Amino acid sequence: MSPNHTLTLNNGAKMPLVGHGLWKIPKDKTATHVYNAIKAGYRLFDGACDYGNEKEAGEGIAKALKEGIVKREELFIVTKLWNTFHNKENVEPICRRQLKDWGLEYFDLFIMHFPVALRYVDPEVRYPPEWFYDGKTPTDIQLSNATIRETWEAMEHLVDIGLTRSIGVSNFNVQSLLDLLRYAKIRPATLQVEHHPYLVQAPLMAFAKQQGITVTAYSSFGATGYVEMDLATAVKTPPLFQNPLIKKIGEAHGKSAPQVLLRWATQQDIAVIPKADTVPMLLENLDAKGFDLTEEEIQQISGLDQHLRFNDPWVYFGTLPIFS
Amino acid sequence: MSPNHTLTLNNGAKMPLVGHGLWKIPKDKTATHVYNAIKAGYRLFDGACDYGNEKEAGEGIAKALKEGIVKREELFIVTKLWNTFHNKENVEPICRRQLKDWGLEYFDLFIMHFPVALRYVDPEVRYPPEWFYDGKTPTDIQLSNATIRETWEAMEHLVDIGLTRSIGVSNFNVQSLLDLLRYAKIRPATLQVEHHPYLVQAPLMAFAKQQGITVTAYSSFGATGYVEMDLATAVKTPPLFQNPLIKKIGEAHGKSAPQVLLRWATQQDIAVIPKADTVPMLLENLDAKGFDLTEEEIQQISGLDQHLRFNDPWVYFGTLPIFS
Repeated sequence: MSPNHTLTLNNGAKMPLVGHGLWKIPKDKTATHVYNAIKAGYRLFDGACDYGNEKEAGEGIAKALKEGIVKREELFIVTKLWNTFHNKENVEPICRRQLKDWGLEYFDLFIMHFPVALRYVDPEVRYPPEWFYDGKTPTDIQLSNATIRETWEAMEHLVDIGLTRSIGVSNFNVQSLLDLLRYAKIRPATLQVEHHPYLVQAPLMAFAKQQGITVTAYSSFGATGYVEMDLATAVKTPPLFQNPLIKKIGEAHGKSAPQVLLRWATQQDIAVIPKADTVPMLLENLDAKGFDLTEEEIQQISGLDQHLRFNDPWVYFGTLPIFS
Repeated sequence: MSPNHTLTLNNGAKMPLVGHGLWKIPKDKTATHVYNAIKAGYRLFDGACDYGNEKEAGEGIAKALKEGIVKREELFIVTKLWNTFHNKENVEPICRRQLKDWGLEYFDLFIMHFPVALRYVDPEVRYPPEWFYDGKTPTDIQLSNATIRETWEAMEHLVDIGLTRSIGVSNFNVQSLLDLLRYAKIRPATLQVEHHPYLVQAPLMAFAKQQGITVTAYSSFGATGYVEMDLATAVKTPPLFQNPLIKKIGEAHGKSAPQVLLRWATQQDIAVIPKADTVPMLLENLDAKGFDLTEEEIQQISGLDQHLRFNDPWVYFGTLPIFS
């Protein structure tokens, strides 16, 4: 079994450097997927209300726990607060529902998914609620007046009452972080953002490090996950796996392109949460420290930067350009 | 005298489409400069505590008022709250000091200069305080814990007590605006940001328009103002005035490159605040509606976008990457 290297968060908790992301894993495959990943050595799973498969992820975990493959305290379970639950009165109830879905007593890390508060949708009406208030019309994105502070303070309360060990944010930029850090009683343990060689964001990474906030990269492989969704910018972007530099560096180390991409991040102390469909790929991704890139190789890969972001409501919906 | 075209702000106030920026006008030339600009037809002046020439700008205004060239109510005076005065108890006193410096009873628009709260520096110790706490060491940038909300609410109070007619923000991005709009009792009337054909920011412009926030462009001529400061990126950027497309479009209309750059903004309802050193240049800049670009020309100019920003603390100081 591969070793689970960890990063130490600003509250002392240890978080695996490599985890498994659950975005877009179909409901009917999630339980088996999670169970197999635990057997392959994964300890961190990165879920979200919005991914629609928390219950099934929990089933995979329950099976592994029951079989004694792993203990709860060896796992690091991450999930996210969806945009429609930002009002303070909705945060604890939805967290409790998510815990129930996972079959857990506590999360290791509970993350604000976006710095966007949407109008509340009752889970009885639709769950997960996703972006559109009526559930279908792309122009029907309705905001709530919950401030980031209101939501963050409700998340701090989740730590106080033991529903999660750590709290973090996702898709925040420096201006949002800077303001949050003015009032946070509990500083965010992590910042999860899109991050790959076409979207390097060196200043944001430097700022997070300086503030003691660990970064987790999502979409480490770039366009791959968005090509499936038929996103125009992703379809026309040459895949990172085929990038000559990435391939060349992989060959020099006898490693695959995905391994090079993940090591580029982890060697900079950026955690990763790739998804893999087969056991050999699961193991390959998990092998985060099986080799080291040279400093020059890291710089060369960073030199591929195109400021190219795929996961952006502005691109999807033509509104809420939160990365501008 | 050139006509002073206006934009109507979200509170009903009329703001000139073209004004005169006071950044980097030397103290000893400011009074004459402002007086001459008023004679040339300017009605909006864009100052700031940080520019260090508010008192002198006020002298130029006083002279023009005294000579009956203009009436106070015909002017639109803009200035900005500096970063060291973000704590709520500092906002009103510094605004009153700024009013005294200008010799005015009220401002037309008072703007939060940056979404950055720095540790208070007593004006008796140093004024303007600028970025470094000790006044000289570039690493000595010390933050205050004032939130954006605290500062904004103190600015709303300035409107309530009549010290300014409108309030706005500068250097804010969409995430900051989105959060501010959740709690603002008075919505920002304007957003002032760096804006030129190398930094188009179409999504930010669209968002501001959608939210009813008028945008004022600063640095409409791109690198020019930063070359004087010897900023490396500015020095190596080919000047917009020499850009073949800008020149070609100017020739087609019998207009100068500065006029093309300003019209590109104003035709999109973006206000501008260029600086000019001579009366002919003052008049040229003010002639905002003397011609129209074609829709195609506007698109072509926007196509010059390089996401190239010059005014950035990260570039100056290697910290606070507020645009990342």
